[in-house]
Amino acid sequence: MSQLPEQSSPQSSPQPSPRRSEPPAERPRRTAGPPVPTSADVARLAGVSRATVSYVLNNTSAVRISEPTRRKVREAAEELAYVPHAAARSLRAGHTRIVLLPTAHVPVGPLYSRFLDELQWALRRLDYTVVQYGSLGLDGDEAARAWAELRPVAVVSLGEIALTPQGVEILKRSGAKAVITLGPRRVEGAHALVMDQREIGGRAVEHLLERGRRRIGVVMPEEPGLDLFSEPRLAGARAAVTASSTGAHVEPLPLSYTEESAARLAARWDGLGLDAVYAYNDEYAMLLMRALQDAGIAVPGDTAVLGADDLLLGRLLRPRLSTVRIDLVTGQRLAALVDRVVRDPGGEPERHDLMGARAVRREST
Amino acid sequence: MSQLPEQSSPQSSPQPSPRRSEPPAERPRRTAGPPVPTSADVARLAGVSRATVSYVLNNTSAVRISEPTRRKVREAAEELAYVPHAAARSLRAGHTRIVLLPTAHVPVGPLYSRFLDELQWALRRLDYTVVQYGSLGLDGDEAARAWAELRPVAVVSLGEIALTPQGVEILKRSGAKAVITLGPRRVEGAHALVMDQREIGGRAVEHLLERGRRRIGVVMPEEPGLDLFSEPRLAGARAAVTASSTGAHVEPLPLSYTEESAARLAARWDGLGLDAVYAYNDEYAMLLMRALQDAGIAVPGDTAVLGADDLLLGRLLRPRLSTVRIDLVTGQRLAALVDRVVRDPGGEPERHDLMGARAVRREST
Repeated sequence: MSQLPEQSSPQSSPQPSPRRSEPPAERPRRTAGPPVPTSADVARLAGVSRATVSYVLNNTSAVRISEPTRRKVREAAEELAYVPHAAARSLRAGHTRIVLLPTAHVPVGPLYSRFLDELQWALRRLDYTVVQYGSLGLDGDEAARAWAELRPVAVVSLGEIALTPQGVEILKRSGAKAVITLGPRRVEGAHALVMDQREIGGRAVEHLLERGRRRIGVVMPEEPGLDLFSEPRLAGARAAVTASSTGAHVEPLPLSYTEESAARLAARWDGLGLDAVYAYNDEYAMLLMRALQDAGIAVPGDTAVLGADDLLLGRLLRPRLSTVRIDLVTGQRLAALVDRVVRDPGGEPERHDLMGARAVRREST
Repeated sequence: MSQLPEQSSPQSSPQPSPRRSEPPAERPRRTAGPPVPTSADVARLAGVSRATVSYVLNNTSAVRISEPTRRKVREAAEELAYVPHAAARSLRAGHTRIVLLPTAHVPVGPLYSRFLDELQWALRRLDYTVVQYGSLGLDGDEAARAWAELRPVAVVSLGEIALTPQGVEILKRSGAKAVITLGPRRVEGAHALVMDQREIGGRAVEHLLERGRRRIGVVMPEEPGLDLFSEPRLAGARAAVTASSTGAHVEPLPLSYTEESAARLAARWDGLGLDAVYAYNDEYAMLLMRALQDAGIAVPGDTAVLGADDLLLGRLLRPRLSTVRIDLVTGQRLAALVDRVVRDPGGEPERHDLMGARAVRREST
């Protein structure tokens, strides 16, 4: 463990430096430690102008600079451990190459994980950087203001934080060229990738009706944030029952993701008179199916159980779990939309419907 | 869908603006659309100096400013939809209040999810912002340079991207006051929160030895990124066997997270001659236990199966899954360390051992 030479304790006086006369815009004032190297330092060491440093390090092809000069600049930058300041660049350009994804605490599943991987890769190939901005505890316009401080060139909101038309305005005024919402909500001024959660509830209930079930429970997770998804799924379930003219019945069933909550629900199952349950997703379905089985209720004999997401774990259960398979937008497709809107931000807000959902029957229905 | 007034198409000419004479540091040049409002605009509208605007909007308590003046500034800022520029602030301060967490594509589980929630909350209370920086496809010093461009005040690396001593240096030169690694690796110059994964493998094997097992398989996931965790767990398993002087044997078992891979492994199980398996975590354990049961191998009669992470799903299996419970550092504790190092960056790099692990016996061992 070595004392770090570039760190001095706050008690020590600032080191004198010949670079103190630099312009303030690139000369951070610091109370301790040597100053951060700037492009001016690189220019001095390389014996070129600051403009040349900027051209070389930003790979500007519009200006012809000889290879030896380019090499000198790169070597000087390396020697000084110079890193361009995204902030300074954004002050000049009005924005960064940051695509900001607000994140809060909606449980992250394997589907979202893969989507995020794809999106990152696809955006990196287009020279963007994905930054997930921790937005837990931020609300509406406060959130938009916080995101705007980073001057992202694009914001892709997954719907966890309610974006308002004012929020969209704040982001655009701060230089964001693309504001895209992804999820059930639409916001004026933003491009919308609508993923209509009602589809999922609808496909779930249609499947259960086809299997001859008529008294259908719909699990409503009690975990925070999930109502954004569960409410429209319930609405879709109700609409499907109405459309079927079967006289079937839908019953919302609050459930926490704990064994105790599931056991309580299973204990009053007989009184509910249900012959099927759409259990929100595969994880809640696994939880409830176990509790029902432990309470002596046969699946699917007494009650059919249906999940959603088509996770591997559903295929490992006995009976194998039937599910609603959800086709998300691919990360590649979203990246292409981001790039198109950034390049041509003047177009009308676009709306794309992306949700595909279909039931996959296994053994539990 | 309305055409947005603040967006004009790239073909239209820039709007003339009386604000064009602003100093360049806060006047982004834009090719289209009206200019982004600056603190100078707010000052002009409120009839105060830019310094006053800065004091009011940054809530500086060192300077006494009357409540009516504060109100005037806030109203002007609101009217202009002015958002402070994190970049401009960081140019003055040398850094932002951003705590940067590099993220790549290591599968995110519920444990990590909760930890991230806690960390976000705790840091927000201390006036920091958590930003997860998509670092997929970035390597070592290239990654450090990309992170440095955002001028974070602290970087907490979870070990997915290999940080080098040079990378730490780059980050510190760019203004980061705290560089903290969290995970199995230590890096010179950085504070280390060591979570020694060997502990987990060690506790797992000790438990299986106590249960009288002597020929122990250790699942090695084939998914990318997980070797960072599985390799030290295997080393810990081997060390525990050696320390036990039981003459027991440890056998690494490559496994992908697919039913096919698990079925292949189960089909050659008898030839392996194992009486126990530590299956990396609860999810791989669920996968393998199902394949073993389907192949007619009794759990725990023929083979004991042990997971890790103590997820709810393990308690839903039959037999109930034994597991290794892992006590992660809490988000609160990590937030406190970040804040302490940011306030006093001159100290020696610290090292804290944080991993707590203990076996929880249920029915599968």
